Amino acid sequence: MKNTIAYIEKNKERFLSELFGLLRIPSISAESDRKPDMRRCAEELARLLREAGADRADVMPTTGNPVVYAEKIVAPELPTVLVYAHYDVMPVEPLEEWHTPPFEPQVRDGRIYGRGADDDKGQGFMHVKAFEAMAASGELPCNVKFMLEGEEEIGSAALSLWCRENRDLLKADVILVSDTGMIGWDTPSITCGLRGIAYMQVEVSGPSHDLHSGLYGGAVANPVNELCRMIARLTDADGRVAVPHFYDKVRVYSEAERSELRAAPFDPEAYKRSIGVPDTAGEAGYVTPERTGIRPALDVNGIWGGHTGEGTKTIIPARAFAKISMRLVPDQDYREIARLFEEYFRSVASPGVRVSVEFLHGGAPYVSPTDLKAYRAAAKAVERTFGKKPLPFYSGGSIPVISTFEEVLGVKSILLGFGLGSDAIHAPNENYPLENFYRGIETIAWFYHYFSE
Amino acid sequence: MKNTIAYIEKNKERFLSELFGLLRIPSISAESDRKPDMRRCAEELARLLREAGADRADVMPTTGNPVVYAEKIVAPELPTVLVYAHYDVMPVEPLEEWHTPPFEPQVRDGRIYGRGADDDKGQGFMHVKAFEAMAASGELPCNVKFMLEGEEEIGSAALSLWCRENRDLLKADVILVSDTGMIGWDTPSITCGLRGIAYMQVEVSGPSHDLHSGLYGGAVANPVNELCRMIARLTDADGRVAVPHFYDKVRVYSEAERSELRAAPFDPEAYKRSIGVPDTAGEAGYVTPERTGIRPALDVNGIWGGHTGEGTKTIIPARAFAKISMRLVPDQDYREIARLFEEYFRSVASPGVRVSVEFLHGGAPYVSPTDLKAYRAAAKAVERTFGKKPLPFYSGGSIPVISTFEEVLGVKSILLGFGLGSDAIHAPNENYPLENFYRGIETIAWFYHYFSE
Repeated sequence: MKNTIAYIEKNKERFLSELFGLLRIPSISAESDRKPDMRRCAEELARLLREAGADRADVMPTTGNPVVYAEKIVAPELPTVLVYAHYDVMPVEPLEEWHTPPFEPQVRDGRIYGRGADDDKGQGFMHVKAFEAMAASGELPCNVKFMLEGEEEIGSAALSLWCRENRDLLKADVILVSDTGMIGWDTPSITCGLRGIAYMQVEVSGPSHDLHSGLYGGAVANPVNELCRMIARLTDADGRVAVPHFYDKVRVYSEAERSELRAAPFDPEAYKRSIGVPDTAGEAGYVTPERTGIRPALDVNGIWGGHTGEGTKTIIPARAFAKISMRLVPDQDYREIARLFEEYFRSVASPGVRVSVEFLHGGAPYVSPTDLKAYRAAAKAVERTFGKKPLPFYSGGSIPVISTFEEVLGVKSILLGFGLGSDAIHAPNENYPLENFYRGIETIAWFYHYFSE
Repeated sequence: MKNTIAYIEKNKERFLSELFGLLRIPSISAESDRKPDMRRCAEELARLLREAGADRADVMPTTGNPVVYAEKIVAPELPTVLVYAHYDVMPVEPLEEWHTPPFEPQVRDGRIYGRGADDDKGQGFMHVKAFEAMAASGELPCNVKFMLEGEEEIGSAALSLWCRENRDLLKADVILVSDTGMIGWDTPSITCGLRGIAYMQVEVSGPSHDLHSGLYGGAVANPVNELCRMIARLTDADGRVAVPHFYDKVRVYSEAERSELRAAPFDPEAYKRSIGVPDTAGEAGYVTPERTGIRPALDVNGIWGGHTGEGTKTIIPARAFAKISMRLVPDQDYREIARLFEEYFRSVASPGVRVSVEFLHGGAPYVSPTDLKAYRAAAKAVERTFGKKPLPFYSGGSIPVISTFEEVLGVKSILLGFGLGSDAIHAPNENYPLENFYRGIETIAWFYHYFSE
């Protein structure tokens, strides 16, 4: 591994400048007018993969944004690692809260700032560079395949189909993914659980046009008041989701398992400070790491209706909307949850309004057992570069496609992520520490090494 | 009156084309960049008043948009009518729902379409033309003063101050206002009651920045969910406002008074059809005309927070906002109601969020007794032009400045309005029937006639 480590050290600056090139492309999958940027980003990645030593690197069409597929087959009898990452990023609004423009990356105070710096261009690109370092040094001990998609932030629908159609191409012993975080520098961790998601959009409508709230106020159901009342009924006073049968399939953890979870270092005061909340809140009977790790949740992600501009407009709005998502845990099924949600949401509407419910996307929860060979290789790699045994960690996030991989390809994924809570992913001023970028490249290289032992 | 009526008939087309000139000016008081349009509209009105025969017509400065003051003193010993109207209009969003541009007036199917066609350029301009017709015909039997303001839709704060400073100038026997509606062509009515208003804006904030809803969902209070829960608690299952002491000063009507109110023709099915609602809704124990006429109400006029664009963004929004107004009835005090609202709203917040409450504007409710000489003159004028005795009507709307006039000038107002429920005021495709415009001009002339008998 000496040559690989030396190669990484020697090429650090070029690695960073190549990443900056990717970060400059505004590949926002949620915005339909970004198609040319999505394509440009995919092509640039294919070019970088070829340069890094791939035997082939192709921009492959899907029903949505293209997938970049690349591979280097060292020898058919060697184990094969399939790397998954995504090159699409989240929208950047509210733009006025960014200190520097989201698509003009720069390093400040040891951090790379820009949309995608962590999620997932920064983390994804570490894999391209770890692969390059090992291939260039003649130390690559296994076959490597890459599958880089452009729709993770909008539900990976096209990739799911594409995987089904390319099962043979994607044959692998393990899938390696860096799209998660660690507890912290002092407490390295490997994510062994992800929550699923069911993302809904609802509309509550009443009058055919906005009404004068003086002439009609008190005589008709106001769609915004109604929407608020209906949303209020989605959760109860104990912080639980009030949709009937929502918890029927939620896995119950033993007292021993919960003790282990609660043993991970967690400082509630530091947690509150880091996100600026006056207090934590959530399901009664559970502590914060349990609330995000092993329990489901329901959040309104956006709401709008009526006059939202300057001044006072005295109307009863004709319509009100909300985007509402539920984070799911094993063994909840997002299709069933979406159905239960719609049924209940309709049932709490008053006769004065009409309701429509749309299912926007879904993903299943995922668990990675800690006794897999690949998990143990990842743990050894992290211990090597961070100097500490990593803790298994239940993340609250969702990477819906991970459970799809298991279902379609029959392969488990290892979630070897290097993000930190301070990276502000999905938010203004997303950033990624330079140190994590470089140490991540090394850790990935060590993973290949231990996995192929 | 023969000459007056003939004059109106002869000049109809010019009257309409002059009104179109006013409707073309986008005098939206809620938008701060419209100041030049406000001034232009005021100057145009002053010019039209001079042409109509006023001895003086001045654009007078206030702390806000200017007031147009005009007068014609026929003889000091004659009674004096002070006409009030407003030249500002509501915002026009959502623009895409207008069938023709809001500031390009046109007549279709016997209706004038455009922002302000009814509220209150159309109705206000009838007074300028009724005055012109009587003055030009030598049949004006009283003194007339005009006070036309540019901030009615945002609370009339500057006019209130201006009235206090111009008490002598504004001496009058009655104030005449056309800024309300009638029940219908077949059921002419005169508004004898208006609701007051307290308009608030609230903000609920949690984390210092938008959080990833996967990583944090279930562990912190979501400001949008919280705002919805708090709004839901503002009203109860009986459709009553849940703010403690909200009803303490609400005037209780006798069974006889309520019977009279319920005697006015009202067709619930036609009402529902005209505004497109599946059902009416409101306070238990009251029928629709009571709910809007003599009972208070609470409506969310706008709500916003989080991701409101295309696609799915998985965030816990840092902040959520709502504009909430309450319609008040005698003898509620808007200052006290605003205070009670704020107290209660803060009290229902959870420890996980911060709350801010802002009072945007307020106005007192108003009652005009039906035994006033001026009311009887208005009733005779309406009977003359509509062929039927008008019903006294309690409108749900608010014209906060009307109660200010009573308080500051000690003069009662007569609300001689000609709008119809189908005029879509404050909404897209505002319109005003041509027939109402012309018959209104005649009715106002008859009012002068009977009032001076």
